[in-house]
Amino acid sequence: MVKRIVILGGGFGGAYTAMYLQKFLKKTKEPFEIAIVNKDNYFVFQPMLAEVVGGSLGLLDTINPLRKLLPKTKLYVREIDSIDIENKKVILAPKFSHSSYHLPFDHLVISLGTVTDFRGMSGLHEHALPFKNLADSIAIRNQVIEVLETAANETNPLLKEKLLTFVVGGGGFSGTEVVAEVNDLVRKLAKQYPEIDRSQIRVILIHSKDRLMEREMPESLGQYAAKLLQKRGVEIRFNSHLQAATPEEAILDTGERIPSKTVISTVPSSPNPLIEKLPLKLIKGKIITDATMQAEGYDHIWAVGDCAAIPNLEGKGICPPTAQFAIREAKVLAHNIAASLSSRKKKEFRFKALGMMGALGHHSAVAELFGKFKFSGLPAWFLWRMIYWMKLPGLDRKLKVALSWILDTMIPIEAVQIKASPTQGIAQLHFETDEIIFHEGDVGDYLYIIVNGEVEVFTKKGDQEKLLAKLGKGEYFGEMALLNQRSRLATVRCVSPVDVLALKKSDFGVLISNFQELREGFEHTEKTRRREIG
Amino acid sequence: MVKRIVILGGGFGGAYTAMYLQKFLKKTKEPFEIAIVNKDNYFVFQPMLAEVVGGSLGLLDTINPLRKLLPKTKLYVREIDSIDIENKKVILAPKFSHSSYHLPFDHLVISLGTVTDFRGMSGLHEHALPFKNLADSIAIRNQVIEVLETAANETNPLLKEKLLTFVVGGGGFSGTEVVAEVNDLVRKLAKQYPEIDRSQIRVILIHSKDRLMEREMPESLGQYAAKLLQKRGVEIRFNSHLQAATPEEAILDTGERIPSKTVISTVPSSPNPLIEKLPLKLIKGKIITDATMQAEGYDHIWAVGDCAAIPNLEGKGICPPTAQFAIREAKVLAHNIAASLSSRKKKEFRFKALGMMGALGHHSAVAELFGKFKFSGLPAWFLWRMIYWMKLPGLDRKLKVALSWILDTMIPIEAVQIKASPTQGIAQLHFETDEIIFHEGDVGDYLYIIVNGEVEVFTKKGDQEKLLAKLGKGEYFGEMALLNQRSRLATVRCVSPVDVLALKKSDFGVLISNFQELREGFEHTEKTRRREIG
Repeated sequence: MVKRIVILGGGFGGAYTAMYLQKFLKKTKEPFEIAIVNKDNYFVFQPMLAEVVGGSLGLLDTINPLRKLLPKTKLYVREIDSIDIENKKVILAPKFSHSSYHLPFDHLVISLGTVTDFRGMSGLHEHALPFKNLADSIAIRNQVIEVLETAANETNPLLKEKLLTFVVGGGGFSGTEVVAEVNDLVRKLAKQYPEIDRSQIRVILIHSKDRLMEREMPESLGQYAAKLLQKRGVEIRFNSHLQAATPEEAILDTGERIPSKTVISTVPSSPNPLIEKLPLKLIKGKIITDATMQAEGYDHIWAVGDCAAIPNLEGKGICPPTAQFAIREAKVLAHNIAASLSSRKKKEFRFKALGMMGALGHHSAVAELFGKFKFSGLPAWFLWRMIYWMKLPGLDRKLKVALSWILDTMIPIEAVQIKASPTQGIAQLHFETDEIIFHEGDVGDYLYIIVNGEVEVFTKKGDQEKLLAKLGKGEYFGEMALLNQRSRLATVRCVSPVDVLALKKSDFGVLISNFQELREGFEHTEKTRRREIG
Repeated sequence: MVKRIVILGGGFGGAYTAMYLQKFLKKTKEPFEIAIVNKDNYFVFQPMLAEVVGGSLGLLDTINPLRKLLPKTKLYVREIDSIDIENKKVILAPKFSHSSYHLPFDHLVISLGTVTDFRGMSGLHEHALPFKNLADSIAIRNQVIEVLETAANETNPLLKEKLLTFVVGGGGFSGTEVVAEVNDLVRKLAKQYPEIDRSQIRVILIHSKDRLMEREMPESLGQYAAKLLQKRGVEIRFNSHLQAATPEEAILDTGERIPSKTVISTVPSSPNPLIEKLPLKLIKGKIITDATMQAEGYDHIWAVGDCAAIPNLEGKGICPPTAQFAIREAKVLAHNIAASLSSRKKKEFRFKALGMMGALGHHSAVAELFGKFKFSGLPAWFLWRMIYWMKLPGLDRKLKVALSWILDTMIPIEAVQIKASPTQGIAQLHFETDEIIFHEGDVGDYLYIIVNGEVEVFTKKGDQEKLLAKLGKGEYFGEMALLNQRSRLATVRCVSPVDVLALKKSDFGVLISNFQELREGFEHTEKTRRREIG
């Protein structure tokens, strides 16, 4: 019988496990098959993602096709619907059809990493940009370019201020890297916009602790990074949390409200929801394994990388969620699976971190090696580039990245924006108390349905406000301007924090022109309300 | 008074008009301002777009930031809401706010090109990929990679056939170029998928005439192109039209139905809808101008490029819609506007085409110069690359393209897919008579609302079909599986051509859990129908 090893996730943990399995199983006599399931057909070299935001690397330089990296592994580019541990199969979501695909396994490697999780933080899901994968990097870059383009021609000073303010939540590793790149990018690009007064640009980093990268870096390097960023114009708010975001502002737990159209959050990472549904033992959402990476109680289920809680035999607690560890874990895990297949002895994972490096943009970085040597500035930056460049899988990738770095020194930065497909359908928006959702006279572009909270609708005659209605959960507003192709007849203000669904004018049109019950309902409400406005 | 010249559209016509205006107005004493409105912040070098599909050029190699190209021109990156010729202003759509932006002008240059228009062709709007701009090229490339990835693991032979069949509608210039690139891409990439039997790949070009590029190329070169494509595996259907498309097949006017998941259509180009609303005289949707490019009856309105009907003084009829003409038109137009401002004499546009070139992928092309010299194969390909490379605006762009071409010969092609944001909200789908929308037992993923046509809903016991309902315009189906988290309880088949709106399960969930009237309505229907199934 062919033994099938199925790996879920193609990040550092999953891709390297497959790579080592290909190697270790070559000599084995058992017939076997390795399959990997990933939602993209490429492997992302995460440590260089921030450079994609900044533009010193091309969009595709940091990624490597999985088929090329793993020639002996079967690749399934699919969403995972569920995992059935009892019946030893993974169910993949339909694609180009309505049938799901059942993938049976003998051994399962779970390396699903973490997902961005904004639960409990109002409005972050709706209005903050995450920074985790390639699409996020491209989205952040596009957003920066889009607000600059808009700010260049904006005449309303408050809106211009919002457009030129950039807020990053989280001063750990990735937050520090991304704020450095965003700050460089905005200030460099702004030179190409003569209409923008560069002294109006604000880049703000919000961090819950009193120094940067406190978990990853020694105090002196954290302080070095903070000083460097501040010198380059980044404002840092220590000891504060990003608590909520709306389309108009970022709200801190200190009560500060920062008007901004760009909020990036690197803070919350939570395990993949698929894992929560499994009968496995979890700690803080991670799968508990022994030092061989076997999930407690299941000799055919393994976990590796950020989604696994692997005891750290050379340190305290569990292994940290870094690429450095994931790659080494993958090697031992591949050995252990090969050993299981041929009934040989398994190994325990032990590894001591070699050091940590963080890029700070603009030819500088911080690094600590072997817990002893500290580097900063240009030397650390050289070290950073050299080490990660050597770690890049594939010769052609190395060539492309090197060329991009060379071109970057020759060709000035370009504000080219690749637009994603137009956002369609139903957007979820969050507003805070006293915020205005729209003003009388605004263009009617959306229908809003209240999910949570309460709004008041009023018109203004001179200084006098005339309250027309208070609306709550399940009620809608904004249909009048849409049904009559007019501008807004009233202003809507939040009297509490409010979550709404916003349905685009064009989609609303399509829905009501085809869906009779809906149209009649809306028209009825609209008539009643029109009488109220008088 | 500062005179403001507003240019709508940043293609060859618009961008080059601005470029020449910057030059010609330098010496003028009149104070002036040039503004250009474009939906992207870059200029696309159209002739090289097909190479982006094929992958010999990088995603961003063919585009040039407009700000860099036009340093003395004010750029507005916005959608145009409407044009008010009477009051001399352009109204731009809201961005990051709910207010529109009014841009007054003294002279208006309309260079809005054409838009893809699938009116009157059932299902093409919904299921065919257009090929006009950069986003289209990226989308086509992604689609090719996605179907290959899926085909690699597909066990259903009919679905595999559909996944491996590629249909291109239109054998004019861009259709021929794109089918050549798609054919090369698919056959090259397929080598990386050992699970795919390459003899199953079909690439089909559908053309309404009896030879390719009959308007642009002499007969001999059209025949050469057809033979070359056929030799490389492209099937050509002459004298037939692409009439309809569904999620499952392409339908020709000859009655042939080609099962396929990838239909690309280059056929219908219609003028920008903004133009249709103007009080200008149009012919076949193009703005009628005199030989100075002034719109009939308006001395401050000009039109240039594909949206203009400019008399062709050196040939017959109106000037053809090519980059070659647009660039020359732009120069004369810029002169004429400058002349209007200083009351000098205007020029008439006259130009005789130098020749035509079309790339055929894989180191070959066809070209005709000065109506005399014909080239094909490798020499034409060298000519093609040389001439267009010289035409590329900007030194750094030339450098990047040259580097990409060199890298392309060194690094094998890569199947990396940049996914656009997940499609959300409401999709419009078209089905033809007898097609099945979903089968009993399928995964319940969408709710469907019928916009046009009729379907029958039935269950099957052995060979016996039990008809449950016939549904028509305005009725919906598919809610049962969604409300109960189950698979489909019945099959839905079209009894006529059918247009439906499909609402994704997740969006349906969001809507009904927040919108009480809707939920009650669906639950009521669901109960009634469940009783009918029994």
